Amino acid sequence: MREALRLAQKAFAAGEVPIGAVVVLDGKIIGRGYNLRTRLQRATQHAEVRAIDRACAKLKSWRLEGAEIYVTLEPCPMCMGAILNSRIERVYFGAYEQKGRSLTMELAGANLLNHKTEVTGGILEEECSRILTDFFSQMRARERAKKE
Amino acid sequence: MREALRLAQKAFAAGEVPIGAVVVLDGKIIGRGYNLRTRLQRATQHAEVRAIDRACAKLKSWRLEGAEIYVTLEPCPMCMGAILNSRIERVYFGAYEQKGRSLTMELAGANLLNHKTEVTGGILEEECSRILTDFFSQMRARERAKKE
Repeated sequence: MREALRLAQKAFAAGEVPIGAVVVLDGKIIGRGYNLRTRLQRATQHAEVRAIDRACAKLKSWRLEGAEIYVTLEPCPMCMGAILNSRIERVYFGAYEQKGRSLTMELAGANLLNHKTEVTGGILEEECSRILTDFFSQMRARERAKKE
Repeated sequence: MREALRLAQKAFAAGEVPIGAVVVLDGKIIGRGYNLRTRLQRATQHAEVRAIDRACAKLKSWRLEGAEIYVTLEPCPMCMGAILNSRIERVYFGAYEQKGRSLTMELAGANLLNHKTEVTGGILEEECSRILTDFFSQMRARERAKKE
């Protein structure tokens, strides 16, 4: 999760909502990603999708059986769906999604694809939350400065 | 939907589960995609994600407000999440997902992101289903031939 936080910092520096993710297999990182939605202007370019794409490229396989993903924020439905589609077995996330229901647990528990993924939240929660809070405070301060 | 079916045929010819998708804005196609998961060995490369990525590239924007997506099969959670994330407003799909619950309607109705997407299923359902049935019959026949 420390590495996912480091990647979130890179997103922060790029002016993106700071979220980072790493895919791990047998104790080794096989894919890294951070949110680049604004820079790339692509709605799909969340940290998890990018990390999964890298991991698939590394293994030359769309199946990431036995892999784990560490992500600084609770995955959105697209990313949770990508996690299930890639057969990742465990999800560890940091901060809990605050804006309404994320449906993470419903998706994980729905036993789609005859595949189960375990989800654990709250890992390094304080640090993972703080980087998001800091980012949005900075954004609001900039908005205020623009209006003055 | 005719164009989405034509794209599904391309997936079929490539040996992929035959699913096609098009994103439409103001009556014009702005993104096309078909399933290439096996050829690219990337779990995220479903028809809808590919069509959305193309549409974002075309508009140079991650927001596809006012757009519609036509897809030959009911979207999986990853694709439905990508549709919501890109702010697409209407989904028209052909065949209904047969393998268990797809959670499509739950995701569309959850009002995530303060954004609503209308979903209509069963468009050219028979043709959209038939191409899938034909594909899986062919796959099974090949498996049997291998074993003999």
